Amino acid sequence: MLAAARTAFAERGYDGASIRVIAADAGVDPALVHHYFGSKDKLFLAAVQAPVDPEELLPEVLAGGTADLGANVVRLLLRVWDGPARKAGLALVRSAVSNEWTARLLREFLVAKVLRRVVGTLGLPEAEGEARGSLVASQLIGVVMARYVLQLEPLASASPEELVAAVGPTVQRYLTGDVVLPDGAAADL
Amino acid sequence: MLAAARTAFAERGYDGASIRVIAADAGVDPALVHHYFGSKDKLFLAAVQAPVDPEELLPEVLAGGTADLGANVVRLLLRVWDGPARKAGLALVRSAVSNEWTARLLREFLVAKVLRRVVGTLGLPEAEGEARGSLVASQLIGVVMARYVLQLEPLASASPEELVAAVGPTVQRYLTGDVVLPDGAAADL
Repeated sequence: MLAAARTAFAERGYDGASIRVIAADAGVDPALVHHYFGSKDKLFLAAVQAPVDPEELLPEVLAGGTADLGANVVRLLLRVWDGPARKAGLALVRSAVSNEWTARLLREFLVAKVLRRVVGTLGLPEAEGEARGSLVASQLIGVVMARYVLQLEPLASASPEELVAAVGPTVQRYLTGDVVLPDGAAADL
Repeated sequence: MLAAARTAFAERGYDGASIRVIAADAGVDPALVHHYFGSKDKLFLAAVQAPVDPEELLPEVLAGGTADLGANVVRLLLRVWDGPARKAGLALVRSAVSNEWTARLLREFLVAKVLRRVVGTLGLPEAEGEARGSLVASQLIGVVMARYVLQLEPLASASPEELVAAVGPTVQRYLTGDVVLPDGAAADL
């Protein structure tokens, strides 16, 4: 069932995959998928082997308002990665770097479960939201790589709040600032 | 000889490793190492399996002056990664993510061959240079991951100049801007 889910999510994306199709591919009744996983969202998290559920963590961040969104997103990233989820997170990154399919799943996870939620609070046109979201992702993934994989100093041993202060403004600028957006979607505010 | 070099560079770092020690570990005469690799720098590039030599590429970027340094660094990164070196670069990232020793080598490569050179043009105190360099690295590595590994759109298919315009200011801010630096090295300019 999880194998069918991984294939479906990687091939069709989060939006395009449905429990009905996944159940058919796995040769089981959709009700059984619902029974085991509860929802498409939970099935997706299991398929990606996501160590945390953004649905549980993001509302607090998003409730903090637009002006602090960049800092709050970086703070949440560090809270998750400095905690017990790091090991599973690193395994996911490792797998994504060496396996095209896991890379697609991780990309779907980031886009559908994290970036779209974060950018969604800003009420932007879709193309602009995606452009800003991909820039945000580039900085967040880079912090993960520099701090936890390459362990570049002093970033690797900096306190979370030092990094929030240093990197938060970058994420804030990508979210709400005057940025020349990739793909020509101009956003000179 | 390369195995001894990898061990030495990973254990002692670029600065701490010497051709004398590497030759001794490999059980050969230092003159032989010089004969095959020419210099410690070339030996290091071979040990890291670096697809390009920053010594050849950076001078042009650094000659462009401080005000455009962020944009020029991003432009060079994209020129290298959008070109034939990408395949070897991805192999290096893949190896670094799954292997602690390669991660150390890649870190040494970034610090000793790229960041120190770029930041060195700014005439900063050492600790501040390292802090700014590690922040720069976090954004550059993140662009590589988002564009070439996860292929997040629209960042993945944006033109190099669109990305230079979007990401260059971030790198510039990390290099010369008013940043709360990790590790307490205050730099309120």
